[in-house]
Amino acid sequence: MKKYTESLQIAIEELSKLPGIGQKSAQRLVFYLLKLNKDEVQKLSDSLIAIKEKIKYCSRCHNISESDLCDICSDPGRDQSIICVVEEASDIIAFEKTGEYHGLYHVLGGALSPLDGIGPNDLTIQELLNRMIDGVKEIIIATNPDTEGEATALYLYKLITPYDVTITRIARGIPIGTDLEYMDELTLTRAMEGRLPFK
Amino acid sequence: MKKYTESLQIAIEELSKLPGIGQKSAQRLVFYLLKLNKDEVQKLSDSLIAIKEKIKYCSRCHNISESDLCDICSDPGRDQSIICVVEEASDIIAFEKTGEYHGLYHVLGGALSPLDGIGPNDLTIQELLNRMIDGVKEIIIATNPDTEGEATALYLYKLITPYDVTITRIARGIPIGTDLEYMDELTLTRAMEGRLPFK
Repeated sequence: MKKYTESLQIAIEELSKLPGIGQKSAQRLVFYLLKLNKDEVQKLSDSLIAIKEKIKYCSRCHNISESDLCDICSDPGRDQSIICVVEEASDIIAFEKTGEYHGLYHVLGGALSPLDGIGPNDLTIQELLNRMIDGVKEIIIATNPDTEGEATALYLYKLITPYDVTITRIARGIPIGTDLEYMDELTLTRAMEGRLPFK
Repeated sequence: MKKYTESLQIAIEELSKLPGIGQKSAQRLVFYLLKLNKDEVQKLSDSLIAIKEKIKYCSRCHNISESDLCDICSDPGRDQSIICVVEEASDIIAFEKTGEYHGLYHVLGGALSPLDGIGPNDLTIQELLNRMIDGVKEIIIATNPDTEGEATALYLYKLITPYDVTITRIARGIPIGTDLEYMDELTLTRAMEGRLPFK
């Protein structure tokens, strides 16, 4: 027996494809949308199309942008001598939320992962090296603390070493607000290795 | 500092309005959509608009439908003498999933809730009474087991009593697969009241 009408079935299928949305959430969303007026659904729908139409990638750092250079690259107030290398544009948002970093970024577009067929040429590594020419003093490697991120960090480290820049990486350690008891061994090891003078 | 581009910000705001989707999930969804190709986002977007354009309400039972009568009302195989009264069209889907009920439905469009300003005239109660004329033998009241649902059930009971039909309501009791220990007192009371001969 057919449970939904055809258009409902299609909308539920489309919504279920999104990450974190299962069949049940999709059904709840669809019934919620049914209760909205048409204009509200149109606004939602338009906003999704708009991101695909308007957003391109910054020609320098590959951050998402609505113009050729992103807001960060085109901001003269940012420190042009530091580049923080991240896997995804969403990582930039996480750092920007802290308000503590004032340098530039470089988005790799992922991490090296031979099993998934992602090699150096699938990332913006050459583009990063091209930026190393003038005035860059420090490269901060901020890939994710997982196998692929670590492998990518090591690969970048070897590639950048010949250049006359300082290479650093963000600290791995215990996150604020957690209980030491529940931390895994590797995190605790990294936290010990990364210990700093008490001040 | 502006964290997102404008179109991203708008899409995140629109998505955050949906139930169960907070700022963080909205951001994750938007970055996921950015990685899809334009056709896929268009398909999702179109499917949401389509439900508003195609879906209307069954003129008889107020279930969602893409034609004047819904699939259930227009199915000659359904038992026309039983009407199960529910609050929302989504409740019908829950019952239909069981595959055990073969009668008709009536969607009230909510429950009585004086605090939210929802009175009898805001629900399809008169429409339900209009259906009582020919051949209806049983009305099953299946409103939600909460204060509003209970009040609505009582109100309907009084209103329908003068008609020559059997009025029943679905059993309140302990759900399958749960532990008695964790059941609230009211559910246990209802489960005791509703006990049936062991067979």
